[in-house]
Amino acid sequence: MTYTAPIDDMMFVIEDLCGLNSVSKLRGLEDATPDLVSAVLEESGKFAGQVLAPLNVVGDRVGLTFEDGKVHTPDGWAAAYHQLVEMGWNSPTSDPERGGMGLPTVVNACIQEMFNGANTAFQLCSVLTQGAIEAIEGYADEALKTVYLPKLVTGEWTGTMNLTEPQAGSDLAAIRSKAEPTGDHYLVSGQKIFITYGEHEMAENIIHLVLARLPDAPAGVKGISLFVVPKYLVNADGSLGQRNDVRCISIEHKLGIHASPTCALAFGDNGGATGYLVGEPNKGLQYMFAMMNNARLGVGLQAVGISELATQHAIKYAMERTQGRTTAGSEETIIGHPDIRRMLGLMKARTEAARVIAYRAATSLDFAQRSSNSEERARHQRRVDLLIPITKGWSTELGIENASLGVQIHGGMGYIEETGAAQHLRDVRITTIYEGTTGIQAIDLVGRKIQRDGGVAAMELVADMRTTARALSELSTNYADWVAICGAVMDAADKVEELTNWILAQRGSEPLAAAVTVLECFGICLGAWVMGDAAISASERIERGRCPMHAKTKLKTVQFYMNNVFPKAEALSSTVKKGAKSILDLSAADFCVDA
Amino acid sequence: MTYTAPIDDMMFVIEDLCGLNSVSKLRGLEDATPDLVSAVLEESGKFAGQVLAPLNVVGDRVGLTFEDGKVHTPDGWAAAYHQLVEMGWNSPTSDPERGGMGLPTVVNACIQEMFNGANTAFQLCSVLTQGAIEAIEGYADEALKTVYLPKLVTGEWTGTMNLTEPQAGSDLAAIRSKAEPTGDHYLVSGQKIFITYGEHEMAENIIHLVLARLPDAPAGVKGISLFVVPKYLVNADGSLGQRNDVRCISIEHKLGIHASPTCALAFGDNGGATGYLVGEPNKGLQYMFAMMNNARLGVGLQAVGISELATQHAIKYAMERTQGRTTAGSEETIIGHPDIRRMLGLMKARTEAARVIAYRAATSLDFAQRSSNSEERARHQRRVDLLIPITKGWSTELGIENASLGVQIHGGMGYIEETGAAQHLRDVRITTIYEGTTGIQAIDLVGRKIQRDGGVAAMELVADMRTTARALSELSTNYADWVAICGAVMDAADKVEELTNWILAQRGSEPLAAAVTVLECFGICLGAWVMGDAAISASERIERGRCPMHAKTKLKTVQFYMNNVFPKAEALSSTVKKGAKSILDLSAADFCVDA
Repeated sequence: MTYTAPIDDMMFVIEDLCGLNSVSKLRGLEDATPDLVSAVLEESGKFAGQVLAPLNVVGDRVGLTFEDGKVHTPDGWAAAYHQLVEMGWNSPTSDPERGGMGLPTVVNACIQEMFNGANTAFQLCSVLTQGAIEAIEGYADEALKTVYLPKLVTGEWTGTMNLTEPQAGSDLAAIRSKAEPTGDHYLVSGQKIFITYGEHEMAENIIHLVLARLPDAPAGVKGISLFVVPKYLVNADGSLGQRNDVRCISIEHKLGIHASPTCALAFGDNGGATGYLVGEPNKGLQYMFAMMNNARLGVGLQAVGISELATQHAIKYAMERTQGRTTAGSEETIIGHPDIRRMLGLMKARTEAARVIAYRAATSLDFAQRSSNSEERARHQRRVDLLIPITKGWSTELGIENASLGVQIHGGMGYIEETGAAQHLRDVRITTIYEGTTGIQAIDLVGRKIQRDGGVAAMELVADMRTTARALSELSTNYADWVAICGAVMDAADKVEELTNWILAQRGSEPLAAAVTVLECFGICLGAWVMGDAAISASERIERGRCPMHAKTKLKTVQFYMNNVFPKAEALSSTVKKGAKSILDLSAADFCVDA
Repeated sequence: MTYTAPIDDMMFVIEDLCGLNSVSKLRGLEDATPDLVSAVLEESGKFAGQVLAPLNVVGDRVGLTFEDGKVHTPDGWAAAYHQLVEMGWNSPTSDPERGGMGLPTVVNACIQEMFNGANTAFQLCSVLTQGAIEAIEGYADEALKTVYLPKLVTGEWTGTMNLTEPQAGSDLAAIRSKAEPTGDHYLVSGQKIFITYGEHEMAENIIHLVLARLPDAPAGVKGISLFVVPKYLVNADGSLGQRNDVRCISIEHKLGIHASPTCALAFGDNGGATGYLVGEPNKGLQYMFAMMNNARLGVGLQAVGISELATQHAIKYAMERTQGRTTAGSEETIIGHPDIRRMLGLMKARTEAARVIAYRAATSLDFAQRSSNSEERARHQRRVDLLIPITKGWSTELGIENASLGVQIHGGMGYIEETGAAQHLRDVRITTIYEGTTGIQAIDLVGRKIQRDGGVAAMELVADMRTTARALSELSTNYADWVAICGAVMDAADKVEELTNWILAQRGSEPLAAAVTVLECFGICLGAWVMGDAAISASERIERGRCPMHAKTKLKTVQFYMNNVFPKAEALSSTVKKGAKSILDLSAADFCVDA
């Protein structure tokens, strides 16, 4: 299986659409010049294409074995992981003083898209480790940081996030795992499920971050604390001590990401697993929420990466497979068939739009963290909070549609596992589920991100969209149908404004019933906005003779997006307003009437 | 895995929306009274639920083994097949004089939906046999009929259709298999792929229907003939003779329908497989086309069946899974969550709409075949020809969306194979590909079914849609928002008319680029039409106190459809008109710019 990092498009997006120049003026990111970034992407692109991508198939076919509590990854997996650690790709944004690369989040977004695109099942290990690092960096005391951070940053140790329990999925208030204080530590017990890379032998230790309740904790979400529970205890000198009381009791047999171990972990079956409190008691969920933006952005990027991969494979097949004859009588490759081009265009245009939204969220994360101006920090934080559920919710749903189109383009061969197209559909199918389902993202968008601030963040976005529309209205070069592009962006801004006002005007459950439809509509409208900006930049590049091939294709892709993707926004917006009542009218009894 | 045949809804559709009373006035169908049909559906429903459904999981998990040219089906498979043969369910529409049940096609549509819903991988064996029966019944001489039909009708022997070759998928003009005349028969040689149930041990013989070229045949589609090639030759006394020169060389490892053997067959490796010409030379493709309507209707019904199955499982899970609390503080099942109801509503409303369209196509097949009035026959044949690509193309795309929503409703559990939700997605994913991809259906709709007759059949349909809209406008009972329902149906009729005129007005490749979008738009508009009719019938049933629970839920479901499914028609219709040019503007080079 081949994967080529789309570096031209990535550089176009981060330079022209995310303002890399301004990012590299932020405190601590001064080294992130276009030249350095371009070199980083070349290198990470090579690693993705040459090391990770070739393992993607064996990961899927061979998968994992589980014996005596141990998980064995497929051949080549551990070696590739050691290479990743050695090359320093495990945690690209971490502080150089802790062994990281100190790269901007937006550059890491490219790297994560590449690594996940090349091999999602593999990259999940680092994704989870990055989460553990963020938790410890952000909330643990210096002692815990000193013991755990250095080896997590390099990837010598890996990390996990232990939230879900059988009765507590989307609703973490129902968590029952316990932590009893004893001396300087806690004894953690309980069962956690769906723990990604909860057990494996690629690294010498695994650091579990675990949500559990202290003995006298309040019920519900306000009584959950966060603990560090290492697989092997760590001695005072930093060497590994005895095995902790946590073990993997099973791994799941899943639709996709076969080589990523999804573990059920039992904590404390023999008296209690030694754990250390992170930060303050009862603030576990609050910490998780603070980390959620990065985690959800990561899943959005995963979907963008798999979309890109599926698109590349579909293009390759369509360029090689002959079927039918041209009007001139010669054999025709199916890329000549208009419907194949329609499908490839959908895959390409939506992947590129979703990429920009994700990278813009990442850029705002950089500004929110590092800008010297507090108002700018706050504004970018609002933008992050608004964009995250959209990038997570929309890219993942698109990822499924794109991968499914990839299967379709392959025809009968697409249904044969050896072809590889079906794997992308199976792999990407998880992305709308974990780190909060699309439904959860949508409730977050409508409730926390729009209702709670009275629509301030959404209206700031509308203003930016109108700025793009105005800029488009002033352009009249010959490269594209600017009227159509500009009209779509204006319309997109109007729709976001209109739906925001609709949400704010409701008093019942209608926004909950319509939430996913709102989210999808926002996604498509934001896609129009960023594609509008892409058109402006592309036309400037053509004028300046910079990457003119990429820029000319971009203009066609923007046109395609406006005419073939954007029209759906109208349907969604009308569904939001008309549909909610008839959703709520369907009662449980209506679904049982035929049973 | 459980499956409950939705008999209430099936009876509602065939009685009220397909006019079973008129069907049973057709020649040869006089026995198909509502009482008999209801009894048939009860019995076939039991067989589906009790015999076929329990085997669906083992079929998926255990799948097939292939050794020494033999295919072994999972435990229980052969016994269930023998039971099906014994009970006479193999070919319900076949002539009673040949051992069939002589049921109307529309009643068989219910049975096929049930059997496919309960276990698609199993039922495919009969589906293919029905195709072989139709070919022999329709085109073979009396001698071949006498030898092969009786045992195919009972299912003692099974049948296959051998079209595809590695270089000839959607484009059958590229077929290379050969047939050399010798004495009273032919020696067939060549390789066929993707042959469903091409080899198995459940029946004592397999009758392959094979497309191949005679020595002096013209090139392209006009030089293809159809042959019967039995696995075992049949002696003059009807007993089985020696093994024919056809063998299975491999079976495919597929995304889904694991227990349905998809075979590569080698004909004539040892001198030539004995085959018998069906009908006239060089008419093979013509015969195939004539049979296509039934085959494509069958795949549409398969998708409806799997949609129904996925919906039932999602409802069950949503009724049992607790997550979060109600405002009163008690544990809440997720069916109380508005977004879960939205997803279930989409699954239910679209499945029911697709069911009516498929059954109406089946009803028109009955009339086209059996009406005593030649004008009525012709009109119904036009309707069949128009509805088939829509039912095949639209139900299957919906089937994928529905099964994917089914996974989503299960949350993290949906991604675990043991849950079963993922199997439906994997199984249904083939339906947009085989018997002609969605792209092929769409070209058929736009080219053969609209352009070729100048839109006559489409305009007849528009007239029927307007009849429904008028009837709705005269209703003003209290059960539903008739204005919205009537408005949607009027709008749907306008859109079908408008797109038909658009297609007829084009002179370039635009209709090909827009074809799938046209097809989806037609599907959604026809869905509005049949749901409009369903609302009328449901309100009449409520007045008469007949199945009032089903009828009241139906009205809510219609309302849901109009407000949550139908709005997409606007987007699709606008995409058709705006989008085609920007599809055609994307050239092959544009897809390679990043590679």
